[in-house]
Amino acid sequence: MTRTVIESKTKTAIIGFDQPFCVIGERINPTGRKILNEELERGDFSRVEVDAIAQAAAGATVLDINSGAVFSNKMAEDPRYADNNFVEPELMRQLVECVQNAIDIPLCIDSSVPGALENGLAAAEGRPLLNSVTGEEERLELVLPLVKKYNVPVVAISNDDTGISEDPDVRFAVAKKIVERAADFGIPAHDIVVDPLVMPIGAMATAGHQVFTLVRRLRDELGVNTTCGASNISFGLPNRHGVNNAFLPMAMGAGMTSAIMNPVALPVNAKKIAEKKAEVLAAGIILPEGMDDETFVSLFGMGSTKSRPGKEMEAIRAANLLMNQDDGGAAWIGFNKPAGGDGASGGRRGGRRRRA
Amino acid sequence: MTRTVIESKTKTAIIGFDQPFCVIGERINPTGRKILNEELERGDFSRVEVDAIAQAAAGATVLDINSGAVFSNKMAEDPRYADNNFVEPELMRQLVECVQNAIDIPLCIDSSVPGALENGLAAAEGRPLLNSVTGEEERLELVLPLVKKYNVPVVAISNDDTGISEDPDVRFAVAKKIVERAADFGIPAHDIVVDPLVMPIGAMATAGHQVFTLVRRLRDELGVNTTCGASNISFGLPNRHGVNNAFLPMAMGAGMTSAIMNPVALPVNAKKIAEKKAEVLAAGIILPEGMDDETFVSLFGMGSTKSRPGKEMEAIRAANLLMNQDDGGAAWIGFNKPAGGDGASGGRRGGRRRRA
Repeated sequence: MTRTVIESKTKTAIIGFDQPFCVIGERINPTGRKILNEELERGDFSRVEVDAIAQAAAGATVLDINSGAVFSNKMAEDPRYADNNFVEPELMRQLVECVQNAIDIPLCIDSSVPGALENGLAAAEGRPLLNSVTGEEERLELVLPLVKKYNVPVVAISNDDTGISEDPDVRFAVAKKIVERAADFGIPAHDIVVDPLVMPIGAMATAGHQVFTLVRRLRDELGVNTTCGASNISFGLPNRHGVNNAFLPMAMGAGMTSAIMNPVALPVNAKKIAEKKAEVLAAGIILPEGMDDETFVSLFGMGSTKSRPGKEMEAIRAANLLMNQDDGGAAWIGFNKPAGGDGASGGRRGGRRRRA
Repeated sequence: MTRTVIESKTKTAIIGFDQPFCVIGERINPTGRKILNEELERGDFSRVEVDAIAQAAAGATVLDINSGAVFSNKMAEDPRYADNNFVEPELMRQLVECVQNAIDIPLCIDSSVPGALENGLAAAEGRPLLNSVTGEEERLELVLPLVKKYNVPVVAISNDDTGISEDPDVRFAVAKKIVERAADFGIPAHDIVVDPLVMPIGAMATAGHQVFTLVRRLRDELGVNTTCGASNISFGLPNRHGVNNAFLPMAMGAGMTSAIMNPVALPVNAKKIAEKKAEVLAAGIILPEGMDDETFVSLFGMGSTKSRPGKEMEAIRAANLLMNQDDGGAAWIGFNKPAGGDGASGGRRGGRRRRA
C-alpha cells in the first residue's frame, strides 16, 4: 500500500491507496486573486490566516502555499521586483510563517522559483510536500536534489521540455521518467505524487477518460499516489460545481488519492445580499428593521455569510464512504449532522423504498 | 458494443456501452407509496399520468411500471384480492394503457407475478424491457419463455434459490448462469440487463467496492449491460442524495449503463410551505397579501412547487459528459441553461483559475 507522509509540527496527513481522499486546499495563492495579491504587496497577511483556518475547517488536511505574486507597484519603484526570483523566496518564507502561526497543518510548498521552494522547505516545520517537479530536464536537476536534501515528498507534473502532451501515453511516459530519475537520487516512488494533468472537458471530450485511465495506470504500474488541479476539468463550462462534483468521485473510483482544490463554499457577499434585498422589496415583502445579514441570508435560502464546506467536499466524503474509507460511516454522519457549523447544507432526507 | 434496444410505439431507448446513461423512472410503483396505492384501489389513475410525464420531463428515457399494489379494502369484501396473481395482471394492463395514453415512451414491465408480466407484454406497444428474471429455477422457467416469445430484453437480478449472497463472486456466478440459461432459449446476452444488487453501504462497508467490481466484470466477461436500484446504496443514512449523487458517477465510471431511480425532485409541498411561512412571520417579515406559493417558494430559496430534475440527474448528466457521452457538451449546457423549466437549479457559476 503506497503511502505518502506529509507532516507539520505535530500533525500528519497521509496520501494513500488505503486512506480517505487527501484534500489539499488551494486558496493561498495570489495567482488570479487580485485582492490577495494587492494585500500581500502591502504586507497585509490577514487574509492568508483566515483562508488557512477556513480551509482546514472545511476539510483540507494539507494547505498549498503558492508564492506566485506580481508586485506591480513595487516594480515601478524598484526593477528587482520584476524578477520572481527576487520576490518569491522572501514571500514564501513569510507565507509559511504566517500560516504556521495561525494553524498547525501540513503544508505544500508551491512555486516555480527554486529559491522559493528552498525557502519554503527551510521555513516549514515537519515534512511538507514540495510542488512541483516536472519532466523538464532543468527542473529535474534543480528540484530533485532539494527533495533529497530535505527528505520530502514531491508533486510530479507530467509535462516535459516538449510541453503538455495531449496524448495520455506520453504523459504516462513523462511520469515514469520522473519516477525513475527520482530513484537515481534515492527518492522512493511513494514520495512522488503524480499530477497526470487534467484537461478541460469542454475543450477535449476525452479528458475524463484520459484522467481515469492514467490514474489507474500510474497506480498499478508505477505504484504512485496521484493528485490534480480538480477544477480544471470544468473550465469554461456552465455550472462548474456540477461537473466537479461528479468528476471527483469518478477520479476517486479510478484510484486518484488527492486533489489540489478549494474546499470552501465562499460566504455570500455584500453585493449578492444587496441584490437579493432589492428583489425581495420589489416583491412587496417588508423586512423588520435591523435584521442582520446572516439571518436574512439563512431565511432566504442563500447559504451563509460564514464560510462552509463546499459541495465538492460533500461529494468527496460520500465517495470516501463508498470506497470503504469511512469506518462505520462516522465521518459521513458527522458531516451531515443537522445544525452546527461543521455540517453540510444537507439536502432532503426523505426515505426511499428499498428495491432489493 | 453491447446495445439493449427498448421501444415504445415510436420511441427508442438504448442501453449501451457507447450510450449516455439510461435512466429508468421508478415512480410508477404502489409499493411503499400509500396514497398511490389507495388511489389505484379506487380506480383513480390520475397520479400515474402525472408521474409518467414528470419523469420523462426530468430525463427518464424508460418508465418502470410496477403493479405490486395491495388492495386491503377490496380484500375485505372479496378474498380473491388477497392473491396478487388475481390483482396484478389486470392492474398491469390498466397501468400500461394509462401511461401509453399519456406519453409515448419505452416501458419496463415490473412484477413478481408472471400473469402481470404477460399482460404487460401484451398491452405494451413496441419492445418493452421485462423486469425481472432471477437465478431461481422456477423463475427462470417461467420468465425466459416469455422473453423469447415476445422477443424483449429482460432485467436479470443476481439472486437465486439460496437468496441474495453477500459474496460478489456468487452474485457474478448467478448472473452468468442466467445469461447461459437465456442462451439455451436463444436469448442473446445483449438482451440481458444484469442487476448485480446494490447493498446499503451503511450496513455493508464493502457495498460500493462490490458493485464497482461486479459491474466491470459483468461488462468485460459477460458483455452485458447493467442496472440497479440506485438509491439502495444510501438506505438508512443521512443526506441520502449526497451519497446517491456520488454513487451514480462512480458506478458509471465502473461501467454501469442504466439505473432504476427517481429522476424527479419532488415539488415543495403545502406542509413545508406552511412551516416556512411560520418561520418567516416569526422573524418579523411581512409578506404582501396574495403572494402565490410559487413566488414565495422561489424567493425563499426552497426550490419550486413544480417538479424538476433531481440532483441525481445533474450528477448523471455531468458523468455522461465526463464519459464522453455528451457530444460537444450540448446536453450539459442545455441542462444548465438559466431559467426555463428544463434547467437544473444551477448552482454558482463562478470562474476558477486554471491550474495547469
